[in-house]
Amino acid sequence: MPTAAIIGGGVIGSAWASRFLLNGWEVRFHDPAPNSEAVLDKVLDKARRWVPEVYDHLPAEGALTLCDSIADAVTGAEWIQESTPERLEIKQVVLAEIQESCAAEAIIASSTSGFMPSELQAGSARPEQVLVAHPYNPVYLLPIVEVVPSAVVPHETVQRAETMLSDVGMKPITLRAEIPAHVGDRLLEAVWREALWLIKDGVATTEQIDDLMTHGFGLRWAQKGLFETYRTAGGEAGMKHFLEQFGPCLQWPWTKLTDVPDLDDELINRIVEQSDAQAAGRSVSELEEERDANLVAMLKALRQEDTAAGAFLNRLRSASD
Amino acid sequence: MPTAAIIGGGVIGSAWASRFLLNGWEVRFHDPAPNSEAVLDKVLDKARRWVPEVYDHLPAEGALTLCDSIADAVTGAEWIQESTPERLEIKQVVLAEIQESCAAEAIIASSTSGFMPSELQAGSARPEQVLVAHPYNPVYLLPIVEVVPSAVVPHETVQRAETMLSDVGMKPITLRAEIPAHVGDRLLEAVWREALWLIKDGVATTEQIDDLMTHGFGLRWAQKGLFETYRTAGGEAGMKHFLEQFGPCLQWPWTKLTDVPDLDDELINRIVEQSDAQAAGRSVSELEEERDANLVAMLKALRQEDTAAGAFLNRLRSASD
Repeated sequence: MPTAAIIGGGVIGSAWASRFLLNGWEVRFHDPAPNSEAVLDKVLDKARRWVPEVYDHLPAEGALTLCDSIADAVTGAEWIQESTPERLEIKQVVLAEIQESCAAEAIIASSTSGFMPSELQAGSARPEQVLVAHPYNPVYLLPIVEVVPSAVVPHETVQRAETMLSDVGMKPITLRAEIPAHVGDRLLEAVWREALWLIKDGVATTEQIDDLMTHGFGLRWAQKGLFETYRTAGGEAGMKHFLEQFGPCLQWPWTKLTDVPDLDDELINRIVEQSDAQAAGRSVSELEEERDANLVAMLKALRQEDTAAGAFLNRLRSASD
Repeated sequence: MPTAAIIGGGVIGSAWASRFLLNGWEVRFHDPAPNSEAVLDKVLDKARRWVPEVYDHLPAEGALTLCDSIADAVTGAEWIQESTPERLEIKQVVLAEIQESCAAEAIIASSTSGFMPSELQAGSARPEQVLVAHPYNPVYLLPIVEVVPSAVVPHETVQRAETMLSDVGMKPITLRAEIPAHVGDRLLEAVWREALWLIKDGVATTEQIDDLMTHGFGLRWAQKGLFETYRTAGGEAGMKHFLEQFGPCLQWPWTKLTDVPDLDDELINRIVEQSDAQAAGRSVSELEEERDANLVAMLKALRQEDTAAGAFLNRLRSASD
């Protein structure tokens, strides 16, 4: 049975642990924080409840071991997932300690949302075994994971990483170059920046912006993405025609607001107030509950349709039949 | 029976006509283009096929009349939807001609994705009856519509517009200020701009970017939007805590690329080639087919869940029961 070491818990590390466990891997978990077990239990409960709703055929759950040290956790592990706080000096120290005990052929993957693998590898004993595997919340349900190697990571290592991630039900996207924040968070950041302007300028509220997504283009992106949505809308004249038509819009007035808005107290408070009003008393637990139920319903629905996500889920399903 | 005049067909105007018809309105349609009837037939066929899958209880379909002139189409109409080409001088001429024949209490709504209502109203005989109602493709399925009044449009007119749009199954979002491109396209433009950089810099392909959405954050945005997704992820410490944690990221290196990339031939060709490879021979008709089947499946799934879109669809459903 393959073994994964989870170094650093929290919402992300605990969900990684859950994903490996539910896909039959042995998991060795290490996080020195006093509440780390409670967080792991909570996330694992959610994963055990929701994941079988999406994937009908799961293997028997793997064994979970809580470890007192990094050395204990990583010894004998094929996959080591680092999810410590997003500070480079912490990650570098942890990666060094991991390498003192892990196998040279193990893959050490960082959950970092911002740092490049070459930054993580600086001072590393074996930089060639360190890469980024950046997942998206909730990690136990969303299949996507960005794999980012640096130039020193061999192609064979990247391929092994892709295989192991696929083995736990994920859809690895291996980037062609390392950049700060990878790809997904760059796109999220662009939307976030623009949304902050719209809120700051009083054009729309958080609820209106969310409604535009949930009743509009979010429904498009969940099943066709950005480019295929435009390709579809562009008609039979094709993508080139669409781009030539759409291109001049990049010079239209609304592209001028590309500065970063000042996230001062006033803006923070405005967003907080609007978001509070929007939540209408629902706790984060309730929101999580809604989110998971919705994602399950959508993934099940998409699985029956001719879509990239559906085809992917169906491949997983038949592979385990 | 209420009457809508559709001035300008194409994919957008034809889908507006379909939405009104399927919700029991009488529709008077005018577009001088030689192929306008063929486009209308095609879009109406799709709408007749898919809309009843989402909404179980629809009224009897309204009557469709093809009109030779703007005057003929708008006489006696309560709602006039203008969907002519995206050029201000064309829209202003058409709006003037509409006002020569329509009732003073009719609402004249423009589908413009870029122009502000005050621009459209310039030189208008009765600017107070002109506003923007900007929908999203496919208009017969996606409920969202941005309503943008200018300062001269009375509150009562805006309320009537919201009521009529709700009557045809839409979710109107009335913006608090007019800006070029309204709100939704500002967000779309931000993602588009960032995605173009990522493609231009060779970091990811169109397919990888689409995969990040369809297997990742697109699934989040389809059912929680941007702010509620972050609120959910932020944990019980709340939105303020989340913003204070997340705020400094706005200053991180990936926010420096806020210039507009040059959409030159090389970039256009790269996107075209990648998009062609991604489509793998599927025609736009096939992509449209997939899109509609997916949206129907997702909307049906969401309707059964506790979500904004689901609650909205359920309200519609029980209202027509």
